[in-house]
Amino acid sequence: MKQLELMKDLHVSSDKKIVMLVMDGLGGLPNESGLTELEAASTPNMDNLCRVSINGLSTPIAPGITPGSGPGHLGVFGYDPLEYEIGRGVLEALGIGLSLKPTSLAARGNFCTLDKETGVITDRRAGRIPTEKCAELVEKLSSIRIEGVDIIIRPVKDYRFALVLDGEGLSGELTETDPQRVGAKPLPVKALKPAAEKSAKYFNEWLAKAFEILKNESPANGCTLRGIAKDPGLPSYAEIYGLKSCAIATYPMYKGLARLVGMDVLDAGDTIATEIETLKKIWDKYEFFFFHVKKTDSAGEDGNFDAKVKVIEETDAIIPDIMKLGPDVLIITGDHSTPAAMKSHSWHELPVLFYAKNVRKDLVETFGETACIQGGLGHIRHVDLMPLAMAHADKLTKYGA
Amino acid sequence: MKQLELMKDLHVSSDKKIVMLVMDGLGGLPNESGLTELEAASTPNMDNLCRVSINGLSTPIAPGITPGSGPGHLGVFGYDPLEYEIGRGVLEALGIGLSLKPTSLAARGNFCTLDKETGVITDRRAGRIPTEKCAELVEKLSSIRIEGVDIIIRPVKDYRFALVLDGEGLSGELTETDPQRVGAKPLPVKALKPAAEKSAKYFNEWLAKAFEILKNESPANGCTLRGIAKDPGLPSYAEIYGLKSCAIATYPMYKGLARLVGMDVLDAGDTIATEIETLKKIWDKYEFFFFHVKKTDSAGEDGNFDAKVKVIEETDAIIPDIMKLGPDVLIITGDHSTPAAMKSHSWHELPVLFYAKNVRKDLVETFGETACIQGGLGHIRHVDLMPLAMAHADKLTKYGA
Repeated sequence: MKQLELMKDLHVSSDKKIVMLVMDGLGGLPNESGLTELEAASTPNMDNLCRVSINGLSTPIAPGITPGSGPGHLGVFGYDPLEYEIGRGVLEALGIGLSLKPTSLAARGNFCTLDKETGVITDRRAGRIPTEKCAELVEKLSSIRIEGVDIIIRPVKDYRFALVLDGEGLSGELTETDPQRVGAKPLPVKALKPAAEKSAKYFNEWLAKAFEILKNESPANGCTLRGIAKDPGLPSYAEIYGLKSCAIATYPMYKGLARLVGMDVLDAGDTIATEIETLKKIWDKYEFFFFHVKKTDSAGEDGNFDAKVKVIEETDAIIPDIMKLGPDVLIITGDHSTPAAMKSHSWHELPVLFYAKNVRKDLVETFGETACIQGGLGHIRHVDLMPLAMAHADKLTKYGA
Repeated sequence: MKQLELMKDLHVSSDKKIVMLVMDGLGGLPNESGLTELEAASTPNMDNLCRVSINGLSTPIAPGITPGSGPGHLGVFGYDPLEYEIGRGVLEALGIGLSLKPTSLAARGNFCTLDKETGVITDRRAGRIPTEKCAELVEKLSSIRIEGVDIIIRPVKDYRFALVLDGEGLSGELTETDPQRVGAKPLPVKALKPAAEKSAKYFNEWLAKAFEILKNESPANGCTLRGIAKDPGLPSYAEIYGLKSCAIATYPMYKGLARLVGMDVLDAGDTIATEIETLKKIWDKYEFFFFHVKKTDSAGEDGNFDAKVKVIEETDAIIPDIMKLGPDVLIITGDHSTPAAMKSHSWHELPVLFYAKNVRKDLVETFGETACIQGGLGHIRHVDLMPLAMAHADKLTKYGA
């Protein structure tokens, strides 16, 4: 029997509460000091907590596989990312609050700068135009009409927008138009299967009209479309785990991910401080809390070791606030590693701190990658976290007689 | 290739002997002393043995999943419990020595007390009537005849009995009749699929006649049926491993489990002392010995930390006797954890001591959950134990050229 079916069969209700604190890109690599970002950070609260917890290391997807944000979070949520795939377009759309129909195709759009003479891309992000400018351009593009489909277009953040086409017989078996490098022209959308020919035609028709509208803009005089896909129709948290769940996150992408599995997405402001206030406010209303900290990842992506240390320390400072609420299970980990040394997501295992009443404690004294090697959890996989959380929250009954 | 197919393909004969010592519910949690039951127990023999062994922790089914006795043992025996499911009725029937035909349906019966006026259950176990009383009632129920099926009914222990219906076209897709709480009436058997309608009818007919016979009894004036199922037809130990195997156990459930995989079930008395005598007596006749100690689990279920410690110590005392016989492989573990602190089965990993000539020894000095975190086996799964046992007993040939 597969894990999700098992959860569906075995879950029972209890009044226990689970907090899943995800520091995006938490895992790191040592700098010249020999310590990772987490190890270099002063984290007295997490260190104290790990001494009464079980700790370990977790592989987000599979050994050697670097997760995007989507698969990384699916793993944290207990859905095998190799089984369930989500297009980036879907994430962007859900992240800004669009709800997709089963018939809809969602694309992530990037405004870009094209060379006026040759048409090749000179800046894939159009100088990272501000969100206001993006909204202005999207407003112009919203005038586009295509026979046979309904169109929704919305600004996301900076140079990014979400485009949704809805109509009969659409298929997401389509290529992307971003050539992934400057000096090349945007590509046309191509159907990967005959059933997607009609969808490709619609998107190419939309692109032609969009380029016409944008041609005299600067610097965003073009755009590309990526991750065109349908909502994968994941079974919900209520269905799988029987959990009344919510998401506390500041960025559209993670809100979208949470919405995809049926979590209530709360308005949690823009900072860790507003997030923790939100958690306090809605504590009585839910059993599962996905608490997302974004800026660990941003700092890692920027190669800024010290900034990542600082975000970890800022997160450590809210641990007492969380503990005061009395969570029955608190898991602290990340969706994937983003070592400042690599300036990118990576495949490295994530440190995991797993606090609950009935954990079998280990001898780990500080929360960090090296110390977690000796942890009692050993080396687990992200998809193991939710079954363990459910078990420790008395929310799973026995399997078999 | 699946594990069992691999074993079937690769097994070869050797004169080496394997002992699988299963302390039921062995895994524990610390009490106020900070030590688990196994850690608190004085186990000089296991401690000595673990220093020349490889040790580790094993997950019985999957992370977070609490096994019933059936799945727990299937894992120990090397059958993936998520692939092979066994009804409780089958276990009870096999446990008292009934052999099921492929056409038979077996149910576990519980005598219960019904309120004479309203018919609701007031005691789901009829005051835990003694086995003698159970046998007396079963004798009365054995007069029931139903057109179309042969019926076997036998007392098991206390308030429990086994009921087997045999006939053409029976199906186990049936509901249970125990409402799982007092204050509710026993439920009728319902067919979950149309093919099981006939079977439901037979069981309901039997129940009607049984209630008529029991109505003036006290306290057992009713009964419920649970886990109605057919023998799952597991491939045997002889077939999979080529092993001449036997089971030394004191409780029906575990004898039944062993019989299910084709082990010879020996008459091993009621105590660890009679079990070890049995082992000595039949040592020359078998290659694989499943040695089951029940009372670790019973003590854990009772929440009696000290009693569990004592059973572990009693088991430790027989280790020299086992070693004197010269086993080539000795595995000491449990089917699942039953921490006294939880008074129930749990999902926690089991400590494993794996003794054999060609083990790659580790640095573990005492046999206990915390020490085993650092063991050379790492974190394995119960289904990994049998292939490792076979390998260390020179009973597996090379895979591939």
